[in-house]
Amino acid sequence: MGLEIERKFLLANDGWRGLAKGVAYRQGYLCASKERSVRVRIAGDQGFLTIKGATVVATRREYEYQIPLADAHAMLDDLCPQPQIEKKRYSIPYQGFVWEVDEFFGLNHGLIVAEIELDREDQPFARPEWIGQEVTGDSRYANAALCLHPYSTWSR
Amino acid sequence: MGLEIERKFLLANDGWRGLAKGVAYRQGYLCASKERSVRVRIAGDQGFLTIKGATVVATRREYEYQIPLADAHAMLDDLCPQPQIEKKRYSIPYQGFVWEVDEFFGLNHGLIVAEIELDREDQPFARPEWIGQEVTGDSRYANAALCLHPYSTWSR
Repeated sequence: MGLEIERKFLLANDGWRGLAKGVAYRQGYLCASKERSVRVRIAGDQGFLTIKGATVVATRREYEYQIPLADAHAMLDDLCPQPQIEKKRYSIPYQGFVWEVDEFFGLNHGLIVAEIELDREDQPFARPEWIGQEVTGDSRYANAALCLHPYSTWSR
Repeated sequence: MGLEIERKFLLANDGWRGLAKGVAYRQGYLCASKERSVRVRIAGDQGFLTIKGATVVATRREYEYQIPLADAHAMLDDLCPQPQIEKKRYSIPYQGFVWEVDEFFGLNHGLIVAEIELDREDQPFARPEWIGQEVTGDSRYANAALCLHPYSTWSR
């Protein structure tokens, strides 16, 4: 079991582009509620099953297991509801941390968010100049929420 | 991925007792619907995570992964809703098949069912004299259903 402590931001500009090669992600949810979610993810050529508990402030319990790629494909194709998440993840090192920039496609086209994983909620970190508004705790940006209410359907 | 083809029966008598040593099972569900379920199980000293699809006749897709025992305990304690399933499983070989007799405790005390796993739905098999009425397809006997509507609450 791990504790996932994450902060999430929108992007201020395109300064992050070209700093890392993107990896294709596809993910869906066997279930998703406030209390718990079970995610099936394909990251590049690897499959994962991830169980997460409720988020308290920026922290949630997380259990992740690698599973056969074929199982992940079959579960996404046959068991997880549509629509699902398609994105590219760019892992960008910056002053001792790794920023994960997610560029969404499909029904979430146009959305780009950046996440940083911390060891504790109040841990200080440097912000690259391309990091914009913080959206940690805004549940609309949770990937499970983006399946149910994709970015393209938001009223802005 | 596997296909799970199972038939389920009530017990006609106590003739099965003493034929195998029971193994303690504890299990709960991260989610459970007609379309899919995610089960956390502790069987003896082993932990498992099992994803199942919808049952069509006696068959359903099943994906099972062994996970650390500590993870299974933590997920059952902290993430899976109560009540959960407590039972002892007795694996009893009989004429080329293995019958799994589940004796339930807690809120399902008094319920005993026997299951046989087949390679195809119409595969013939011999019934021990202690096998009673078939309940394959009776959704009340599904373990996920027994969490929500335990045997002790049934009107009989």
